[in-house]
Amino acid sequence: MQAFENFNKEELVKRKNELSEEYENFKKQGLKLDMSRGKPCIEQLDLSNGLFNDVQNLFSEDGTDCRNYGILDGILEAKRLFAELFDVNTDEIFIAGNSSLSLMYDLMAKAFNHGLNGFEKPWSKLDKIKFLCPCPGYDRHFAITQLFGVEMIIVPIESNGPDIEMIEDLVSQDETIKGMWSIPMYSNPSGITYSDEVVRRLANMKTKASDFRIFWDNAYALHHLYDTPDRLLNIISECQRAGNPDRVYMFGSTSKVTFPGAGVAFVASSKENINHLKKQISIQTIGYNKINMLFHTRFLKNAATVNEHMKKHAEILRPKFEAVHEILDRRLSGKGIASWNKPNGGYFISLDVLSGCAKRTVSLAKEAGVVLTNAGATFPYGTDPRDSNIRIAPTYPPLSELRTAIEVLAVCVELAALEKVLAV
Amino acid sequence: MQAFENFNKEELVKRKNELSEEYENFKKQGLKLDMSRGKPCIEQLDLSNGLFNDVQNLFSEDGTDCRNYGILDGILEAKRLFAELFDVNTDEIFIAGNSSLSLMYDLMAKAFNHGLNGFEKPWSKLDKIKFLCPCPGYDRHFAITQLFGVEMIIVPIESNGPDIEMIEDLVSQDETIKGMWSIPMYSNPSGITYSDEVVRRLANMKTKASDFRIFWDNAYALHHLYDTPDRLLNIISECQRAGNPDRVYMFGSTSKVTFPGAGVAFVASSKENINHLKKQISIQTIGYNKINMLFHTRFLKNAATVNEHMKKHAEILRPKFEAVHEILDRRLSGKGIASWNKPNGGYFISLDVLSGCAKRTVSLAKEAGVVLTNAGATFPYGTDPRDSNIRIAPTYPPLSELRTAIEVLAVCVELAALEKVLAV
Repeated sequence: MQAFENFNKEELVKRKNELSEEYENFKKQGLKLDMSRGKPCIEQLDLSNGLFNDVQNLFSEDGTDCRNYGILDGILEAKRLFAELFDVNTDEIFIAGNSSLSLMYDLMAKAFNHGLNGFEKPWSKLDKIKFLCPCPGYDRHFAITQLFGVEMIIVPIESNGPDIEMIEDLVSQDETIKGMWSIPMYSNPSGITYSDEVVRRLANMKTKASDFRIFWDNAYALHHLYDTPDRLLNIISECQRAGNPDRVYMFGSTSKVTFPGAGVAFVASSKENINHLKKQISIQTIGYNKINMLFHTRFLKNAATVNEHMKKHAEILRPKFEAVHEILDRRLSGKGIASWNKPNGGYFISLDVLSGCAKRTVSLAKEAGVVLTNAGATFPYGTDPRDSNIRIAPTYPPLSELRTAIEVLAVCVELAALEKVLAV
Repeated sequence: MQAFENFNKEELVKRKNELSEEYENFKKQGLKLDMSRGKPCIEQLDLSNGLFNDVQNLFSEDGTDCRNYGILDGILEAKRLFAELFDVNTDEIFIAGNSSLSLMYDLMAKAFNHGLNGFEKPWSKLDKIKFLCPCPGYDRHFAITQLFGVEMIIVPIESNGPDIEMIEDLVSQDETIKGMWSIPMYSNPSGITYSDEVVRRLANMKTKASDFRIFWDNAYALHHLYDTPDRLLNIISECQRAGNPDRVYMFGSTSKVTFPGAGVAFVASSKENINHLKKQISIQTIGYNKINMLFHTRFLKNAATVNEHMKKHAEILRPKFEAVHEILDRRLSGKGIASWNKPNGGYFISLDVLSGCAKRTVSLAKEAGVVLTNAGATFPYGTDPRDSNIRIAPTYPPLSELRTAIEVLAVCVELAALEKVLAV
């Protein structure tokens, strides 16, 4: 296909008219398609319907009556399962409630109110706190830092992870940079996985702030699409090796393994960080839902059976991701107006359109009945400086609806690009 | 029985020797009895084994797939059930996770970090924050305020509630008094229920701080022991009537209705407070465990069936409370060394021993294998100024063990009293 830059004005206008007609035809169909959030689809949920098959015995393997109070950091078999899945020791993990996001919020609140392990002062006692935000990133992360009044610094995401030289440079000089968000594997939405080198440099880098902490949201660690998955280095052991054992808190959950909102979440870190956290959490709650932990460990069993379970998810999701690639390839490749990734896992495809065209594209799609994540959402404060990035969440709609939605999106991408080119 | 004050020294020494012998005999039995926390017993837990009887259909009555993301403030039927049970409207309630304590902690954290509805400033921006603490009270409440560096002011609990004149006086003068803990029904541990007058005066009183808030922990609202239960006025509507609609946050859960740690918790307040809270919580989590809400509403059904269910709890607990009364009456009444309450509900009996004797009593009991809640735990900072209050938690041990434990306790109360009297 020819790039638009080689078209003359007449050809551009002609193409725009063709697209406008196609767009109007879509509008007439009265579509109502939602691709705004990374939700599992019904077939994926059905994979876990066996979660409540064994609900008669509510005692854990060490005889704990999971119906009563007791045990703050999770039942033994849940700690063992998650420790195996995420390659940590059972004393480096805390099993909590249904939401890893609320654990991240809660740790941020604790960092501000009381301080985390190794802090000289709670962050609320300091005038200025900054966080590094690899972008495009996850809107809910940025909303948390925004709520706490944290200044967010954009760090561009590259194919191996965030710009590590920029990070090293910033944290070595600025004591007010206290932390960093990360989705290190099949990142939301870029789909990339941090390289071994990036992980090692994050673990080893000198930070001016002694209380610099990485919030390592390992949300998609198990969510491969293919049999040759990406590999992520274990940052917790790298931090230990580097002499910075308390630098990182890793988060994860079964939200996209079993049931979103009804799963089990955890935080993993150094033993010292976890022990400190346990003391703080002992003030906040008597304990988390052990019965749900029990149901989960009985259903998921061990790392090998979880991997088999995740392969079933992949079988459902692969055709959806590939449909997006096929349509975007056919409609947009070679035109010089869009680029996108083909991730090996995770929940998103990140689409970059011409600068200044993302909002217009999303708005055109919305008018035609296709709801996407807001343009800008993948950047702090909801503002993409280049107005270029669009997050595609292909998991939830049925394949036929997804195909229609992506056809509409592709038309909108091209239409918005032509509007821009012709307006010059 | 004769009061000790009428004994001469010889008689006191004789009595002490008798008791010491009895105490040593108990010690020889190698008892291991734990009455430290207000835990339901196994028979109570068994009442809710039907919670997971209907686990095939995971859709709520409005068709929401409870297995997926969506709905922040609880499924419709859960809101309806709790609204009926706690006499509020469904737009005045937020259904959350498994722990009302963690909701209280979270609201305190939000009050400090971001401010609650109607706050001019978050509390972390102020130099000094004080809370009123009716005492004896709940150690976990005081631990939360202590963690946040809140200065705690003891307000004595009387038979109708906390000393309301003292409260009115303090809050009218001191702008730094920002809040108050309350367990208004079958209070922990005093067992009293706030009178209508106390509730009305709390709702109506003038407070110097415009952001004065009552944390109304309605933990035992459903937990009657007898068919003629105490009655608690609805403080939310009283606050509305008084023109102070945003003054109170009410908390509760099914921890002692179904399963502690695996139940459903809520916060209720004015519609404006709840709407403000929803916005804040939308940053923190995508939602709470809707499947557990579904199981709970199917099992508990409505207020009438919940009341029937709670009567079964009462049948199990009544003999335990009455055994404590019988033993304390027989062993201690008339001696002028102890007083205790006979509550109509809740989880505790509050025992007051001679000033300066609570720690010694608890320590003697521990040596004899009976673990009680730490003396002092019912006061801020773990310090009972009179060293007099002991919380008895009779629910968990089987009746025969409970009887033994209370016999031991009564011996220790008398022994500690005699040690004190004879040391003068």
